Amino acid sequence: MIRPQSIGAVTPQTEHFGEALNLRSGGVLPEYDLVYETYGALNASATNAVLVCHALSGTHHVAGYYEDDPGNVGWWDNLIGPGKPLDTRKFFVIGVNNLGGCAGSTGPRSLNPATGKHWGADFPFVTVEDWVTAQARLADRLGIHRFAAIVGGSLGGMQAISWSLQYPERVANVVAIASTPRLSAQNIAFNEVARQAILSDPDFHGGHYYEHGTIPTRGLRLARMIGHITYLSDDSLAEKFGRNLRHGRPMYNFDIEFEIESYLRYQGDKFSQQFDANTYLLTTKALDYFDPAFEHGGHLPAALARSTADFLVVSFTTDWRFAPERSREIVYALLHNQRNVSYAEIDCAAGHDSFLLDDPRYHGVLRSYFDRMKV
Amino acid sequence: MIRPQSIGAVTPQTEHFGEALNLRSGGVLPEYDLVYETYGALNASATNAVLVCHALSGTHHVAGYYEDDPGNVGWWDNLIGPGKPLDTRKFFVIGVNNLGGCAGSTGPRSLNPATGKHWGADFPFVTVEDWVTAQARLADRLGIHRFAAIVGGSLGGMQAISWSLQYPERVANVVAIASTPRLSAQNIAFNEVARQAILSDPDFHGGHYYEHGTIPTRGLRLARMIGHITYLSDDSLAEKFGRNLRHGRPMYNFDIEFEIESYLRYQGDKFSQQFDANTYLLTTKALDYFDPAFEHGGHLPAALARSTADFLVVSFTTDWRFAPERSREIVYALLHNQRNVSYAEIDCAAGHDSFLLDDPRYHGVLRSYFDRMKV
Repeated sequence: MIRPQSIGAVTPQTEHFGEALNLRSGGVLPEYDLVYETYGALNASATNAVLVCHALSGTHHVAGYYEDDPGNVGWWDNLIGPGKPLDTRKFFVIGVNNLGGCAGSTGPRSLNPATGKHWGADFPFVTVEDWVTAQARLADRLGIHRFAAIVGGSLGGMQAISWSLQYPERVANVVAIASTPRLSAQNIAFNEVARQAILSDPDFHGGHYYEHGTIPTRGLRLARMIGHITYLSDDSLAEKFGRNLRHGRPMYNFDIEFEIESYLRYQGDKFSQQFDANTYLLTTKALDYFDPAFEHGGHLPAALARSTADFLVVSFTTDWRFAPERSREIVYALLHNQRNVSYAEIDCAAGHDSFLLDDPRYHGVLRSYFDRMKV
Repeated sequence: MIRPQSIGAVTPQTEHFGEALNLRSGGVLPEYDLVYETYGALNASATNAVLVCHALSGTHHVAGYYEDDPGNVGWWDNLIGPGKPLDTRKFFVIGVNNLGGCAGSTGPRSLNPATGKHWGADFPFVTVEDWVTAQARLADRLGIHRFAAIVGGSLGGMQAISWSLQYPERVANVVAIASTPRLSAQNIAFNEVARQAILSDPDFHGGHYYEHGTIPTRGLRLARMIGHITYLSDDSLAEKFGRNLRHGRPMYNFDIEFEIESYLRYQGDKFSQQFDANTYLLTTKALDYFDPAFEHGGHLPAALARSTADFLVVSFTTDWRFAPERSREIVYALLHNQRNVSYAEIDCAAGHDSFLLDDPRYHGVLRSYFDRMKV
C-alpha cells in the first residue's frame, strides 16, 4: 500500500455524438457533446473501468486538478487516485458531465443547432435513464463493454442503480451511496420550492434569459440555500454554527447576524454566479421522476429483479435527505431477488454531504469493496 | 360534561395605548393599538384568565366565528369553547394579535403617526419579550393581575415561557406546546432563506412596497412554501401526497405534476395574498432572537430559575421543526429548579402542525391539565 496521492493534472475530453438521442420525455436531442475525464489506464481486456456518476451540482471533474488552475480539484478527489480507496493503479475511472448540464456537455446553455440560439427552455427534459443511455454510448466509444463498477452518491447513486436495470449485462458492481430508489413527497417539496424560486425570478424570462442578457441569480441563490440546508444535518449545523452571532449580540437588522446566515448567503451567492438555472430545473425534475418501481406498481423488488450486479449500498445515520431507511429499501429489494448486496450504515454527523467527506469508516468500506473487486 | 360546542359569534375589540413602548431593539413605539378577542367571562376575583399567544401566522381570532363571516373560525377553535379542553365556562380566554402583526394590531402596514405614511421597513424590530410587555399592559387594562395560565404553541410557547420570566408573579401556569427555548442553526437557516426570498423580491422595495403599490407576493409565497415543509412531517407528507401524479404519469413540464406541488403552491399563493411581508420578516427575526439562556451563558436552568409557574410541556414525536428533544430541554431546566412540570410526548404523525390538531391523546392531556387547574 502506498501513501494516497493525487492523480495529478488531468485534462477533460469531449466526445461528439452525431446520432440522435430519443429521450423518455418524448423529446429528441439531434446531436450532442459529452465532456468527460478519465483517470488511470484501461486494461487490455477492458474489464477495469469504473464510471462515477455525479449528483446535482457535480461535474465530470471528479479527481485531480487542472494544470492551469491547480486549486480546481475534483469533487471526489479524496476517494480517487493512486493509493486511494478507488485506486487508479487498479481501475480506469471515468467521470462524465450529464446531458443538460452546464459544465461542458450539451445543455440548455448550449446552442440549439436548429436555431443557432441557446437552447434555454427548449432543451428537452432529460431523465436518469437518458443520462445512462448517453453514458453507455460513451462507453461504447471508449471500448468498454462491461463496467467493473458504476459508482455514485445521491443522484449519482440513482444512475448507478438505473445502469443495472437498463444494461444489466454491462455492470458487474453497483456502488450506491446516500441514495434512494425514489424521492419522497418531502424531497419533491424541497425541489419544488427551489424551482419556484427560479421560475418566479423576473430575470428568468421563461428560461430564455440568455437572450435577455440576464441571469436569474436571485432564484438560483435561494434554490441553493434551500438545498444546502437539506445537505447538512441539524447536528452538524449546530456544531459548525450554533447560534453564534457575528457581532456577539443582536443588531436588529436584516444584515448577517447569525453565522449560519453568512454561510448560506455565501453558498447561494457563489453557486448562483456559476451554475445554470435551466440545468438546475432539469436536474431537480430528473430527481423527482426517477422511480424504477413506478412501472411495477410501486413494487421495488419487482423493479430490481432485472439487475444482476453485486451491490454495495452505503448510507449515513444523520442523512435526513436520503435517510438510511431509503437505502435499506434498496437492500431489501435486492435480497428479495437473492442478489449479492453489502450494506454499511455509517455513523457520520455530516448528513447527506457525508458522501463527499472522507470519514475513515466510510472510506474503509469503499476501499475494502474495491480492493476485493475482481477485474 | 357537556358536548363540546362553539363559543359562537365573537367580536374583536381594539385597545389603544397612548404611552410609548420601549423595545428591546432600542426602538420606541410612541403609541399603538392591540386587537384582541375574549371568550367566556372574567370571574369576580379575576383569577380565571387564560392568555393564548399565537405563532407566526396566527392572530387574535383564536375561537368562535364572525357573525358576518361564519366560515372564519378561530385557529384554535377545536381547543377552546364550552365543553372543550380549555373550557370557556370555567376560563376567561384572551387572544391578542401581536405588535408588528398584520391582523389589526399596530404593525408595518399601519400608519406611522410621525410621517402619516405606512411604517413599512421603519417599523421597529419587536421581540418575544416586547410582545409580552404589550400583552401585560393589555392585561392591566382588563383588570387581570395574575393569569391562571399562559398558553401557546410554537412561537406562542416562547411567549408563554417569557411571561413566566418577565412577570413570574403574574403567571400561575405555563402551557408550552411544540415549542423550544431557542432556535437551532437549522431553524434559523430556514427562516433566513424565507427572509431572503422576501428581501430579494423586486416588489419588496426595501420594505416600502405600500408606497410603491406593490406586494412582494413572489417572496412571501416562497417563504410560506418553505415554512409549510417544516410544519409537516416527512411521514405525513408521504401519507397525504406520496408520489401521486396529477395526470397519472410524468408530463415533462413545470406545471403541477405531483400533488405535493399543488398543495405547496396553493398554500403559498393563499398566504401571499393576505399576510404582510414585513410582518413575516419581523416575526422570523423575533423567533431567531428568542433565547432566554443567552444572558446566562447559554445555561437554560439558570435562565428559568426566575420562573415560579407550574408548567405543562407538550411535544410531538414527528415534529422535526421543534423536536421533543427541545421540549425536554425545558423540562430538565425546570426540574433542575425543582419546579412543578408535567410533560407529554404525543405520538402524533402530523409533525409540528400537530399542535393545531385535535389528536385525542393531546387534547386529553390539555383537558386534564385545565380541569384540575385551580382558579
